[in-house]
Amino acid sequence: MQEISKPFDFLNSSINKNVLVLMKGNLRIRGKLKAFDVHMNIVLEDAEKLNEDDTVSQKFGKVIVRGDTIILVSP
Amino acid sequence: MQEISKPFDFLNSSINKNVLVLMKGNLRIRGKLKAFDVHMNIVLEDAEKLNEDDTVSQKFGKVIVRGDTIILVSP
Amino acid sequence: MQEISKPFDFLNSSINKNVLVLMKGNLRIRGKLKAFDVHMNIVLEDAEKLNEDDTVSQKFGKVIVRGDTIILVSP
Amino acid sequence: MQEISKPFDFLNSSINKNVLVLMKGNLRIRGKLKAFDVHMNIVLEDAEKLNEDDTVSQKFGKVIVRGDTIILVSP
Amino acid sequence: MQEISKPFDFLNSSINKNVLVLMKGNLRIRGKLKAFDVHMNIVLEDAEKLNEDDTVSQKFGKVIVRGDTIILVSP
Amino acid sequence: MQEISKPFDFLNSSINKNVLVLMKGNLRIRGKLKAFDVHMNIVLEDAEKLNEDDTVSQKFGKVIVRGDTIILVSP
Amino acid sequence: MQEISKPFDFLNSSINKNVLVLMKGNLRIRGKLKAFDVHMNIVLEDAEKLNEDDTVSQKFGKVIVRGDTIILVSP
Repeated sequence: MQEISKPFDFLNSSINKNVLVLMKGNLRIRGKLKAFDVHMNIVLEDAEKLNEDDTVSQKFGKVIVRGDTIILVSP
Repeated sequence: MQEISKPFDFLNSSINKNVLVLMKGNLRIRGKLKAFDVHMNIVLEDAEKLNEDDTVSQKFGKVIVRGDTIILVSP
Repeated sequence: MQEISKPFDFLNSSINKNVLVLMKGNLRIRGKLKAFDVHMNIVLEDAEKLNEDDTVSQKFGKVIVRGDTIILVSP
Repeated sequence: MQEISKPFDFLNSSINKNVLVLMKGNLRIRGKLKAFDVHMNIVLEDAEKLNEDDTVSQKFGKVIVRGDTIILVSP
Repeated sequence: MQEISKPFDFLNSSINKNVLVLMKGNLRIRGKLKAFDVHMNIVLEDAEKLNEDDTVSQKFGKVIVRGDTIILVSP
Repeated sequence: MQEISKPFDFLNSSINKNVLVLMKGNLRIRGKLKAFDVHMNIVLEDAEKLNEDDTVSQKFGKVIVRGDTIILVSP
Repeated sequence: MQEISKPFDFLNSSINKNVLVLMKGNLRIRGKLKAFDVHMNIVLEDAEKLNEDDTVSQKFGKVIVRGDTIILVSP
């Protein structure tokens, strides 16, 4: 019996974990996933915007990221 | 018991607080969050458009910002 | 008791007032807000397209501006 | 008592009048507005594509213009 | 009595006629309109992709063109 | 009596035939049409990505192509 | 009797297989397909971002890829 979870189950299992978010326009943000909705809008805590070389470019507290700007999310 | 708020609960908790809004086309606006709707259209008060170096480029009174131009919102 | 108006209430309160409309593609138009709908399509009267230095580039009478080209509206 | 017409009422009152249509990609078309629908798809008669200097670049008979390519319409 | 046809009535009256289709990305295709649907997806017969100087760049037999890539259609 | 097929009838009649798919971003793919849905997502078999000069750039087995990246499909 | 599967049946038959995902902005990701939904959001396991020459640019564990950034998926 095959056990296939849906993409949003995967996001759900990443709640309270650190994730890397690749966004359109070469923007990359790292932070702790706190919430998401069906549009893939997500809330990150201790979010950091990254430079090309993975150093931190800007620190945010919490951020809400619009789902339609997201390319991929990886824990 | 896990307590997960939805992204819009997060916006709701930012009402009357200063937020930074990153928008498409490298536009950044700072202001006091006064209102939002399900499309993430938001109203800011004492809004300021920022230059690259975080100095103020233009001052607005109130503005309504279309949700589909928003990349992220951070308090 | 908190009193939060929705973004479209804000547009409604700007009817018959002069507003500045920032649009995609660096287009800026100023005029008197006469009407709007749920898509944020708006009608401006005595509309003027502005140059970079805020001088008037082109005068229109009335214009209808499609909501999905709007970035922000400010009175 | 405030009398606010909706944006599409404005289009309706422009039927059979000459309008200027600004479109994405710096395209400008002038013609007589013959029809429109809720997506702002419009039909123009005696339509002319304009050059930067407002001279006529190309003459069409009737054209149907897709609403989602329109920035603004002005009589 | 004013007689206003809807944009899609206009397309309907162009069935089996040659039309010019302007598309996003400077693509221009000419052919006989054979079918369309509510998304403005269209089928052309004896379709030809045109060069800038209106010479034929590529000949197709039938093609289906996605409506959301269309800017305008003219008979 | 006029006999007008809908665009998707046209796709249906191309099942198991070789088609050329023009996609956004100058991507061209050729292959045997095996399936499609209402979003114009399509499955091609023996798919080949083409270079500018129509030589084969990359061979795929089956591919699923998202409809919203398609410009046109031609048998 | 013709046997035509729908595009999502094709994705379904690729579950637990390695797939190549071409995405907008020249991004290419390879990994084992673990899940997908109706928006073509997909989950990949042991995902690798590829360079132009097919060498691995970055390794991810699991990733969720937004469907609207996908151009094509091939096993």
